[in-house]
Parts: sequence; structure tokens; C-alpha cells
Amino acid sequence: MPALTHAALDLLDRQDPLAGFRGRFALPDGVIYLDGNSLGPLPRATPGRIARTVAAEWGESLIRSWNDAGWISLSARIGDAIAPIIGAPPGSVTVADSTSVNLFKLLGAALALRPARRTILTEAGNFPTDSYIAHGLATLLAQGHTVQEVEASAIADALGPDVAVLMLTHVNYRTGAMHDMAALTRAAHEAGALALWDLAHSAGAVPLDVQAAEADLAVGCGYKFLNGGPGAPSFLYAAPRLHDALRFPITGWFGHAAPFTFDAAWQPASGITRALAGTPPVLSMAALEEGVALMRDAPMALMREKSLRMGDICATLLAEQCGTFGFRVLTPSEHARRGSQFSIAHPAAYPIMQALIARGVIGDVRMPDILRFGLTPLTLRYTDLWDAMAVLRGVMATGEWREPAFQVRRTVT
Amino acid sequence: MPALTHAALDLLDRQDPLAGFRGRFALPDGVIYLDGNSLGPLPRATPGRIARTVAAEWGESLIRSWNDAGWISLSARIGDAIAPIIGAPPGSVTVADSTSVNLFKLLGAALALRPARRTILTEAGNFPTDSYIAHGLATLLAQGHTVQEVEASAIADALGPDVAVLMLTHVNYRTGAMHDMAALTRAAHEAGALALWDLAHSAGAVPLDVQAAEADLAVGCGYKFLNGGPGAPSFLYAAPRLHDALRFPITGWFGHAAPFTFDAAWQPASGITRALAGTPPVLSMAALEEGVALMRDAPMALMREKSLRMGDICATLLAEQCGTFGFRVLTPSEHARRGSQFSIAHPAAYPIMQALIARGVIGDVRMPDILRFGLTPLTLRYTDLWDAMAVLRGVMATGEWREPAFQVRRTVT
Repeated sequence: MPALTHAALDLLDRQDPLAGFRGRFALPDGVIYLDGNSLGPLPRATPGRIARTVAAEWGESLIRSWNDAGWISLSARIGDAIAPIIGAPPGSVTVADSTSVNLFKLLGAALALRPARRTILTEAGNFPTDSYIAHGLATLLAQGHTVQEVEASAIADALGPDVAVLMLTHVNYRTGAMHDMAALTRAAHEAGALALWDLAHSAGAVPLDVQAAEADLAVGCGYKFLNGGPGAPSFLYAAPRLHDALRFPITGWFGHAAPFTFDAAWQPASGITRALAGTPPVLSMAALEEGVALMRDAPMALMREKSLRMGDICATLLAEQCGTFGFRVLTPSEHARRGSQFSIAHPAAYPIMQALIARGVIGDVRMPDILRFGLTPLTLRYTDLWDAMAVLRGVMATGEWREPAFQVRRTVT
Repeated sequence: MPALTHAALDLLDRQDPLAGFRGRFALPDGVIYLDGNSLGPLPRATPGRIARTVAAEWGESLIRSWNDAGWISLSARIGDAIAPIIGAPPGSVTVADSTSVNLFKLLGAALALRPARRTILTEAGNFPTDSYIAHGLATLLAQGHTVQEVEASAIADALGPDVAVLMLTHVNYRTGAMHDMAALTRAAHEAGALALWDLAHSAGAVPLDVQAAEADLAVGCGYKFLNGGPGAPSFLYAAPRLHDALRFPITGWFGHAAPFTFDAAWQPASGITRALAGTPPVLSMAALEEGVALMRDAPMALMREKSLRMGDICATLLAEQCGTFGFRVLTPSEHARRGSQFSIAHPAAYPIMQALIARGVIGDVRMPDILRFGLTPLTLRYTDLWDAMAVLRGVMATGEWREPAFQVRRTVT
């Protein structure tokens, strides 16, 4: 890597094979957006798509659009578009509901496949909704299920004969640390357990191959690296070898074999479609379809290469320019163990981030002490990292983060 | 009522105090839309609202819109806007997920409130997803719960000591028949059961007062009479007296007391907010908020009066103009027992409806033999009913419904 000067980073930008993608997003002026891991930015194609879906499909064609505009197949269609992004075969991914609800559905289906086992094994410090959902399901079932939460290093040892499912988030939302999906799935299988992966911070961010890893079940988020818009519906995956046996706990009409015959008796649809429950939110689905279409154009190998280089640059710049301010890097330096974000810890994380945002550098905070910066290779320039770090240095050197306005806690950080 | 001539109906239109509302919807030319009970038409205010939400809130403000544009409070805000439409107090309604998922959540919470009872009582011929969800939950719990489905006339007798919850759809999706919510809720309470009402075909269609009726729980649909757009999120209601005791089966982070502190332990939010699970689909929520805002401007007493008169006119016109074609009216003639649709049966319902749609009269079919016509007082003119009936007469008199093209079954009818 060349010496870390602005000129060197500018050269990298000019040589960047992904540089053209930035123009496909509507990015606001005066902002360096390092929060694409929380809410991906707006693709330029999306407003027009939404306007057409609203005015022509809903307004003009009305109910006929379920057939004529293919609303009825949106879940399957977007699922098939996401499939190659996660290394899944066609027909194994569908889109519906939120990540939390899909996690509930997958976890319920997993426990039903291992009826003699009572343990849901997961990682301590997993994204809270994953843990909440697991505990809630265990309470609901009232059959003695427990949720065992262990440190990452203790997972292999905890895979005992009572573990029904190993539920892990592939890339940790706080640190950006990435698990070895293939190895842990293999360990789960050797223990007779299923492996359920939360790909919220992975899909569109790192190379994925759920099929090669033999993952059983997976869930992911549409509004982060897939740029599907705020609260975009979530996707879920199940290995085709499991489809016929899957029984999801929420049995709504869109998961029925023939939803529009209004049969009195439940009959699950074939394949992953049985995971659907109610009518999908079409406007949000349309936005997600645009985001996914854009991501499918992006070569993951180049994205990964740029993402890792950006992470390395962040670490170097932090050490060189902000080394005296007491930051501690949380994201693993080892490439194979890293997702696509750069996380650092500081006791004053919250006001520091508010001060950064006031200066147009947008990341986010995970309390109590983590500053997160999402690395999105399609929209970020290498020089953005330089500029962002200069702002961080300024915020720290001037002590402006101590201003009272930055201490006031807002609902969402 | 004046004699049923086109001139008499035209006079009614010119005297209609609701006539001005039609201009607030974008209705296609050449169409008489009688399917607002399945997908409400597009309010003219909605495209602009969606465009702003996409371009300004998402595109420009990005993640900051969770605070700055109030995305974080969309569920509560829209819930409070729906509350008066169903006669609920502020803070008792929220918006999230699909009707199917919300039904699952409410039913799970209801069973938890009656732990010694094992019966879910409902009506035979209820909307299928309601029945599917109930059976799915009973199977999931594996505690011997059963779903008892009886005819409407047998509900009171079936309210025995084992009934945990009486789950009913207020207005039947096929016939448009309406239950007496207050009387059946009272009967349920006398039997020690909870009453859970599905208001999918009621909210925005008929006067509702869940509080006066002492309904315990309710769920409803955003995309029918509330004009919230295709697949709009659903609303749910719980009586405030139950809030503190409610434990929903899906415990996702948006239902947590403090979602953004990322606590390891589950702590339900206060009030109805604990019913939330994952991140709401913001674009679809924004469209729903516009639809609900419009509905709140509409005086329900006038809407109800017009809806009932339209139903009476449909029955009279059918008898006068199509009396020889073998149609049978399914919707009750008694006003107190009627929702806001006109349903008729015919053995050739499917091809007849396709022929109507081809001529621009859009209703829908519920197999095997029901033609449904939604009566939406804000968009329909009395003369539209005359014109629609003339088309039906033409389709029947010419026999054009027998054309092969109209026999081909499409996915969604």
C-alpha cells in the first residue's frame, strides 16, 4: 500500500474499478455517509420505481396489479435476486416481514426439526433482537427450552447433545467481527444441531456461500448493505434439503399452497414460499427490489477487496492522526475475521459521534462506548476516509464534542 | 327513496355531502371500482408524500430521519390516527407487520391470559388466514389447544368454560354480514373468555366502538377501507386495562422498553408498543399514514348512511335489471347486520367477473361462486351503481361471460 497521504488515496479513487457505482446513488452534499451498515443510501433508480409502483400499478391498475404487475410474485422474485448474493440456489430464498419476525419463524421451524432437544445456542453479545426472539419463543413453547449464550470462543465446546440449533450472527453488529460460517456450521452438524445464520451485516457486505457452508437456515436484512430503504422487508433462506420438512410457526395465507382458493384447511406451499405469512408491503418491497438489483451488478470480489483496504486505511489513519485520543479499535485486523465496518471504542462515544454528525460525518453509536463506521465500497471514496478522519481529529483536538448539545441523548443513535 | 332511475340516482349524487371526497382520490378513467374492500384506491396526497419520504427523508437525511422525520414514532402516530376510527382511546392502537402476523401475536397473548383454557372459538367460514393462524399456533404450543369452528348461530352456545378466546371477523369477507360486536363480546366475557375481533372489513367501512363494546383485542387491515396501499401494514388494538399483563409471543427489539440501549434482557415496552417486533417498513407506513389521514376527515355517520343506501340500491337494481339471471343475494338486507359490500352468488361467478372487469367494472370473486362488490362511499357515485348494473345486465344478456378468455383462471381473482 502506498503511504497514507491524501494524494495517495486520491490515486486509489481514480484507479477504483467500483468508482462508477457512486453515481448510481443519490447522496446528499456535504455528508460523508459511514452508516450504510444501518441504513443503505438511496439508489437513484428507486424514486422512479416507487413513483411508478404508486401511480401506475396502484393508482391506475389497482387490484389488477397483483397479477399484471406481478405483486403476487414479489417475494419469490426478490428472493431469487438475493440468492446469488448469499450463495443460495434459486427457489431457496424469499422476502417477507421483518428480520425479527423471520427469525422467529426460522427458529420455530428449527426447533420443530429437533423435537428431542431443548437448547438454543447463541453468542453472548449477539444483536439483542435475536436473543429476545429466542427467549420469547422458549417462553412461549413452555417445553423447557433454554437459550444458552456463550462467548464466541466457547461455542464449539457448548455444542452438546441437547443443542437443537446454533443461532449466530455472522458479522457482529458492534465489532464487525466475522465468524467462520463453514466451520461453525460443520461443528453444529457434528453435534446433531442445525445452524441458523443471521446475515444482517453480511448480505451485500462480504462474500457469502450458504450452500458451500451447508448452512441450514438464514435470515437477513434488506435495509443495510442491500440498500432497500428504511425498514425494508427481510429475506430468509432454507436449504432445499429441508424444505419439505419445514413447518413454520406462523401459518398465514401467503404461505398456503393455494392462497386464493381460500381453503378451510392449512396446506403449506411448496418450497420456501411456506415461510410467508401475510400480504407483503408492496411499496417497501418495490424499493428493496431496486436496491437488490443494483447490488447484483456489483462484483463482490472487488467490493470485498475495497472494503478490506478501506478498513486497513481506517486503522492506519486512526493510529496516525488520532492516536493520542484514547480510541481502541474493536474490528479484527485479520481480514478473514472482518465484516465491512470499522468499530472503535471510546468512553465519550456518544457525544463524539454527535459532534461528527454535526460536521457531516455520519456513523452511529452502540452504547455505551462504540463508534461504528460502515464501509460501503459502492458509495465511499478512499479520500472520504481521509476527510472523515480529519474531522474526527478536529472534533477531538478542539474538544468540541464536550459541547452540551452533543450530550443530549436522542431516541435513535 | 325516489324511484330507481338514472335521473334519480344522479340527483342523489348532486345532493351527496360526501361528493367532494372523490376528487381526493386518483381514480383511473373508464373504470367503476368496486373493489375498495380488497385494495383501496390511491389518495391524491399519497404520491407526493411517498416521493418526499423517499427523496428527502431517506435520500437526504438518511439515518437521521429516524429522529428528525419521526420514523421511530410512525407506529404509534398512525395507531393514534386509527384509534378514533375504531372507537379506541389514544395509546391503545399501534401499526406493524401484516394482519396475519398481528393476529398470531394477539392470539398468543390472549391464550397466555387464559392459561387454564384450551379452546380458540371461531366461526366456520372465517377468513382463512385467521383459521390457519389459530391452528398453527395451537400446533406450535403443543399443549392441547383446539380451534373450534362453529356456525354464527352456534357461537353463544359454544362459549363454554374451556374457551380462552372468541376470535371473530366482524364483517364476513364473503357475504358482508356483520356481527354484533357488543353482544358477542359480552357473551364471551360472561363465559370468562376474551374477545378478539378482526376488523379487516370494518375499519373505515362501518361505525366502530371497540371501547363501548369492551372488546379485548382487535386487529385490522391498512389496505382496504383505510386506503393505505398494497400490503399496507396492519393495526392492532388492545384494551388499556389489559396492557400491563400482555405478553406477546414475538419479542422483537421494537417492542422493547428501550430498543436503542441494546439491553441483553427482554423488557417489554409500556402499553401497546410492546406488540411491535421488528423495524417497520417505512415507505409503506408513510402511504398508510396518508390513507388514514384522509379517512379521519370523513364523517362516518354520512359514510354509513351512503353505504347502506348504496347497498339497498344494488339489491333493487339487481332485482329489477338482472332478476332473471339466477343471482342470489348473500349480503343481509337488514342494515344492522351489514358491512359495506354487496355480495351475490352465481355458479359462473368467476367468468362473469372477468367479463365485468374487461368492461371496466372491477369487483372480485371468492370461489367457488361469490361475486363481491365493495361499497366505498368516498369514491363511488350512486350513478356508478346504475352503470355497473347495466354492464352486468349486458354481460349476462349477451352471454359474453362464456367467452373462453374469461374462463382462464388467474392467480389472484
